[in-house]
Amino acid sequence: MISAGATLAAMREKKPLVHNITNFVVMNETANATLALGALPVMAHAAEEVEEMARIASALVLNIGTLSAHWIESMLLAGAAATDRGIPVVLDPVGAGATEYRTMTAHRMLDAIGVTVLRGNAGEVATLVGAHAEVRGVESIVAGLDPAELARTAAERLGVIASVTGPVDHVSDGTRVFAISNGDPLLATVTGTGCMSSALTGCFLAAKPSEPLEAAAEALAAFGVAAEDAAAGADGPGTFHARLYDGLYALDPATLDERTHIEEL
Amino acid sequence: MISAGATLAAMREKKPLVHNITNFVVMNETANATLALGALPVMAHAAEEVEEMARIASALVLNIGTLSAHWIESMLLAGAAATDRGIPVVLDPVGAGATEYRTMTAHRMLDAIGVTVLRGNAGEVATLVGAHAEVRGVESIVAGLDPAELARTAAERLGVIASVTGPVDHVSDGTRVFAISNGDPLLATVTGTGCMSSALTGCFLAAKPSEPLEAAAEALAAFGVAAEDAAAGADGPGTFHARLYDGLYALDPATLDERTHIEEL
Amino acid sequence: MISAGATLAAMREKKPLVHNITNFVVMNETANATLALGALPVMAHAAEEVEEMARIASALVLNIGTLSAHWIESMLLAGAAATDRGIPVVLDPVGAGATEYRTMTAHRMLDAIGVTVLRGNAGEVATLVGAHAEVRGVESIVAGLDPAELARTAAERLGVIASVTGPVDHVSDGTRVFAISNGDPLLATVTGTGCMSSALTGCFLAAKPSEPLEAAAEALAAFGVAAEDAAAGADGPGTFHARLYDGLYALDPATLDERTHIEEL
Repeated sequence: MISAGATLAAMREKKPLVHNITNFVVMNETANATLALGALPVMAHAAEEVEEMARIASALVLNIGTLSAHWIESMLLAGAAATDRGIPVVLDPVGAGATEYRTMTAHRMLDAIGVTVLRGNAGEVATLVGAHAEVRGVESIVAGLDPAELARTAAERLGVIASVTGPVDHVSDGTRVFAISNGDPLLATVTGTGCMSSALTGCFLAAKPSEPLEAAAEALAAFGVAAEDAAAGADGPGTFHARLYDGLYALDPATLDERTHIEEL
Repeated sequence: MISAGATLAAMREKKPLVHNITNFVVMNETANATLALGALPVMAHAAEEVEEMARIASALVLNIGTLSAHWIESMLLAGAAATDRGIPVVLDPVGAGATEYRTMTAHRMLDAIGVTVLRGNAGEVATLVGAHAEVRGVESIVAGLDPAELARTAAERLGVIASVTGPVDHVSDGTRVFAISNGDPLLATVTGTGCMSSALTGCFLAAKPSEPLEAAAEALAAFGVAAEDAAAGADGPGTFHARLYDGLYALDPATLDERTHIEEL
Repeated sequence: MISAGATLAAMREKKPLVHNITNFVVMNETANATLALGALPVMAHAAEEVEEMARIASALVLNIGTLSAHWIESMLLAGAAATDRGIPVVLDPVGAGATEYRTMTAHRMLDAIGVTVLRGNAGEVATLVGAHAEVRGVESIVAGLDPAELARTAAERLGVIASVTGPVDHVSDGTRVFAISNGDPLLATVTGTGCMSSALTGCFLAAKPSEPLEAAAEALAAFGVAAEDAAAGADGPGTFHARLYDGLYALDPATLDERTHIEEL
């Protein structure tokens, strides 16, 4: 059952450890978003320790935003350790489609790891299902592709829950599709808000591992509500960014469900 | 012709992709400054992908603030790819003069890459032209050196446009010299504002590649105006830092030229 | 003699260079805290330059929060160079106890380097003295362990000044113990505030190298006062974080001692 409020309450009660192997640009920001929401972030990427860290975590978040050979190796090690233990894994294929290296690495991870949720923008996800997409750097423009259908197709073909974020977010397990329409346009003016949504997806999965489709949709809705509150007091991208953590911290499990807009299509 | 407003308008229309290979300290901040101004930042440093990424970008920004061997190799690869395609390159020689490794690396890049704009503080630039400078870490004190003359000499000797920032900024192509007197003292209280000015120089070059001297001067003036607006609402370095992105986002092309102080000496 | 105000005044007069080899999550934040306080931060981690950089610095801060093999090597090189010159060294053993790799690395540094101050949370420090501690990621829970006694024991056994932060901080040289009760609960909602306290400890050591016990206690008290001021104007973790730098910048040496709560036990 969908209830972002109930999952948030369970998460804050449990304070799950969420292991992130993420990119250099957003390490601080994803850790702070995780902490503000109520989970415990840990960043660790050395091959010597990632398996041990992944095994004590309640979710693993892999993000290829500034990848290189050693980091890929560590992500594969951590991913395998998490898969072995049944720990949910989020993959954020940042920039898939922009360079061959990123597209290939994302595919390699999807093949080798039991990815629970693939969270990306439309261009990244379209690239991974072989659809045409224009990806410029880490931004993308996908013309003439229905995002709900994209999420459903990606889930089906890649064997994951597909979480496609955009003006309206779409999350699917290949059969069911949820559309989430919380959020604010200022999210697109701050680097790493997509990466944050992946990290928070990890937090929600940690609290509700048995219903990953619902958890993934709830995470995006909760993040969207926090963004709406942040935008209310912001003068632009910088003050919005600071207030985004205030918004996550202030999310109230008791009233959250009244504010989320999650629709099953 | 100098018009920061016109170049900003062209840049926001084009939304150029700016490829940064920069230091760990400022990755988030330079990406956010780029995005707030209106361009698309991408951070990528793996040797496997930097040439491909540089080729699809409209400008390349290289910053040696936390360098190491693999990163230097990638900067050289990306720089060569950009040079081949005529894509403008900004080099920020962070800490040149503080250690031999940094000084040598900056010279190596100036020799191997078609650097369009060298953007540094007076100590870093003085080091690279062989003048006496005291560089402590990444800060510098240059006594008795006229900054306008420093910019002109550096441009002439190094075959670049030299962009020397300080209380008043000076930009020169070896013949002409522009002095830019926008900005606020709070810029010196936040780490990475120099690196941000290099990133924004890349954005302006991407919009006006045929007039790099003017573009480099306009970038500093626009950043200075944003800093003035940020300072007006700030209580110190932290709130100033957040408001700096608000200021960049709010820059108005229609009125920007009335506020910039760019003087040709 | 304890006087955070006098040490802060001396530090701002001297503007010492503080060399940090720290983790990717907090590089920007520790540099900004250092700069806001009034010292000059430099981040450099390449084996080719760390010895040269450490030798020109007035303090060295080592932080193992996102360690890997090359970084450990560089920390050992920089640590040896600083030890040779009598430059004070702060070690922040982030996550010791969470993985064997981190625990082992922290011990290796304590063995090889003349660590002046070990700054950690109770779980990390307890791990290093062999006491039982539950460390989850980089957070820890230590039940039934008196923190003052933990600081005294760690100092004695490890031959360092132990600085154990928590709701009340305790700093000891193995004989004397200071308890510092400044700060605000919001500090625990922002990633890297522990790392910041280590960086600021480096700044205070640079200003008062002959009395490292006092300097370490003063640093935590000053940071705590800044946090109190930041909390007063904050709406949550994000605005608190921005205001923390405002608070550090605004610390007034003339009145600081009236606000610090440092008690010798």
